[in-house]
Amino acid sequence: MKLSELGEFGLIERIQARFRAPDGVTGIGDDCAVLHQSTGRDTLVSSDMLIEGTHFLRKEIPPYDLGWKSAAVNLSDVAAMGGKPTGTFLSLALPADLDTDWIDAFMHGYADISERFGTPLLGGDTTASPDRICINVTVLGECPYARARLRSNAQKGDVICVTGSLGDSAAGLKAILEGVERDVEVQRLIDRHYRPVPRVPEGEELRLNLGVHAMMDLSDGLGSDLQHILDASGMNAEIDVSAIPLSLALKHCCQRFGWDPLALAVSGGEDYELLFTCTPQAEMLLSVPHFVIGKVTSSRSVQCHPEPVEGSSHSGLDPESRITWRGTASPLSPGFDHFKKG
Amino acid sequence: MKLSELGEFGLIERIQARFRAPDGVTGIGDDCAVLHQSTGRDTLVSSDMLIEGTHFLRKEIPPYDLGWKSAAVNLSDVAAMGGKPTGTFLSLALPADLDTDWIDAFMHGYADISERFGTPLLGGDTTASPDRICINVTVLGECPYARARLRSNAQKGDVICVTGSLGDSAAGLKAILEGVERDVEVQRLIDRHYRPVPRVPEGEELRLNLGVHAMMDLSDGLGSDLQHILDASGMNAEIDVSAIPLSLALKHCCQRFGWDPLALAVSGGEDYELLFTCTPQAEMLLSVPHFVIGKVTSSRSVQCHPEPVEGSSHSGLDPESRITWRGTASPLSPGFDHFKKG
Repeated sequence: MKLSELGEFGLIERIQARFRAPDGVTGIGDDCAVLHQSTGRDTLVSSDMLIEGTHFLRKEIPPYDLGWKSAAVNLSDVAAMGGKPTGTFLSLALPADLDTDWIDAFMHGYADISERFGTPLLGGDTTASPDRICINVTVLGECPYARARLRSNAQKGDVICVTGSLGDSAAGLKAILEGVERDVEVQRLIDRHYRPVPRVPEGEELRLNLGVHAMMDLSDGLGSDLQHILDASGMNAEIDVSAIPLSLALKHCCQRFGWDPLALAVSGGEDYELLFTCTPQAEMLLSVPHFVIGKVTSSRSVQCHPEPVEGSSHSGLDPESRITWRGTASPLSPGFDHFKKG
Repeated sequence: MKLSELGEFGLIERIQARFRAPDGVTGIGDDCAVLHQSTGRDTLVSSDMLIEGTHFLRKEIPPYDLGWKSAAVNLSDVAAMGGKPTGTFLSLALPADLDTDWIDAFMHGYADISERFGTPLLGGDTTASPDRICINVTVLGECPYARARLRSNAQKGDVICVTGSLGDSAAGLKAILEGVERDVEVQRLIDRHYRPVPRVPEGEELRLNLGVHAMMDLSDGLGSDLQHILDASGMNAEIDVSAIPLSLALKHCCQRFGWDPLALAVSGGEDYELLFTCTPQAEMLLSVPHFVIGKVTSSRSVQCHPEPVEGSSHSGLDPESRITWRGTASPLSPGFDHFKKG
C-alpha cells in the first residue's frame, strides 16, 4: 500500500499503535505533549516541519516571513494548550547555493517573533539539503500541573468559540497562487497567511478560566480541526455557519474575485486562531475577544457509526463527521490530508 | 555570498550572533542545550535533521536501520553530556508514493532503539514531502543540576580518551558507496555505519566521575570534534596517532582494499563514540571501556593566532588547528563541513 492511500491520519494511528504512552505524559496526538514534572509545572513540547514545495514556495514567500511563520506555527501549538512558550530549537536544511542574504532575512523574522513572545532560540541543527529548504522547529513551553487544555474534554452543552476571523489565510494563499494584484485588502490576507500571530496571551487567559474545557489551534481548517475535538471527546456539534466570523477584507475580496468565503473559512487552514469549547456561563466572563459559532450537542458512542444527523449538509466524504452545519445549503468539504490529493 | 562560501560553522556563528543566550541556559552550541529547572535536575534538549541525499541514500539504507539511526544520533547527543535520555519527538516528511512497508520497517527500527534505551516517542509531526524523505528528531534528557559535561571544560594536563574504535563507520560508508562485496568483516563496518549504538550508560558513568572534565560525541570525526573541545576550552592538544583504537575489521578491510585506516579514523565521522578529557588520576578509576589517545598540553589565548606548533603535521587547511598529531608523517585533513565540498 502507498502512503497516499493510507493518508496522514492513518499513518499517525499506525505509528501510535507501535508506541505505548508512558506514565506521566498526556497529550500525545494533541497540539503538544504534556510532561508532568515534579515541580508542579508541566512541560509542553511540540515539533513541526515545513518543507519547500509542500508548505511554501521559495520564490513566493519572503524569507523574513518564512522565519516568522516557522516559529509562529509552533508557538501556536503551545497557545493551543493554554501554555506559555519558553524557547525553541530550529533545524535548518539549506541548499549550498542559497544566498546568505536569504538566511539573514529568515533569521531576522525568526528573531523578531522570538523576541515578541520571549522565546529564545536554544539550539538546533544546520545541515545541507540537496535542493529543497527543510525547516523543523521544536518549541518548549510550560503550564501549571494538569491545567493544559486537551482536545478531549469538550462537554455536552458547551458553546464552541473561535478567537478571530477565519478564512483570511486561505484566501491569502489563493491570492498568491492566482497572482492577484496586491492592493491593501489583498495584502492583508497575504499577511495573515505569511505572518500569522499565535494567540499566546489569549490561550493563557483562556486557560485561567476553568469553564474552558477543550482547546486547539486552527491549522488544518475548522471542519477538520473541530472534528478532532469531537472525535477525542466523543461528542457531536452544531455549527451556525452565519456566525463564523469573516473579515471585511475577506468579504470584499470574495465579492471581487468570485471566491466562496465560507468554503475558505471552513476548509481553508492556517488561520492559527484558537478553537475552544466552554460552558455558556464561562463564555460570558471571557475578556479574550471571541465569537460563539455553535454548540456541543450530544455525546455519542465512538464505536458505532450512527445514521447521518438530520439537517446535516454532510458531503458524504467523511462518514464519521458529526458536525451539523446550520444555515448553509452547500456541502462543505471536510479537512485536509497532507498525503491525499485534494 | 553563497552559503557554500560561508560554511556550516560560519552559519552557526551568524545565527548565534543574533540571539542572546538567556539566563538559566548553558550548552548552546554544545551537543545539547542545558535548561536549569527548579527541581535540581537539568533538562537536556537536542535536535538533529537527516535529509535524503545528504545523510542517507534511500535505495541503500534499509528502512529499519534508518529508523534506528535517526534516534541513535540524538540519544548520542544526550550521552555526550552525561545525561539520561527520557523521550523523543519525531518529525517525518514523506513522499506520498512511499510504500507503507517502508514506513513500518522504519518505525520498527525506531521503536527497537527507543525500547532499548527506555525513551518513548512522545510526539512529532507527519507531513508530505514532494520527493526526498526528511527526518527530524528532538530528544529530551535529564541530568543532575550543573553536572552535564560541556565541551568547554578541558583542563591542562588532562588525558584525552575515546570509548571505542574509530573509523569503522566511515569505512562502512566507503564500502557501501564503492559497492564492495559484503562478507562478515565488511558487514560489521556497514552495521556500525547504519546502526550506531549511542554510549548512553557509558556517558552516565563518566558523568559520575568528577575528574571527567569535557565530553562530546564523535559525529564529524576526531580531527574536527576534538578541535571543538579545544576551541571551547582555549587549549592545545597532542594526539598519539598510534594509540587511536582501530578495530580488526577495519584493519583487515583497509589492507584488502588499500584504504588508509588513520584517515578514516581521524577524518571519518559518525562513530558516535564519546570523546572526553579527564585527569590522569580519574582515568585510572574508570570502569567504562576507553582508550587514552593523547593529552591536553597547554592553554592558549583564543584571540591570537600563534605560529604552527613544532612537530605538527598540520595540513594548512585549518589555520587555527591546535592539535599536534604525533606518530604520523602524512597530513591529516581536518573536519567535515556540510556546505563545503570535501
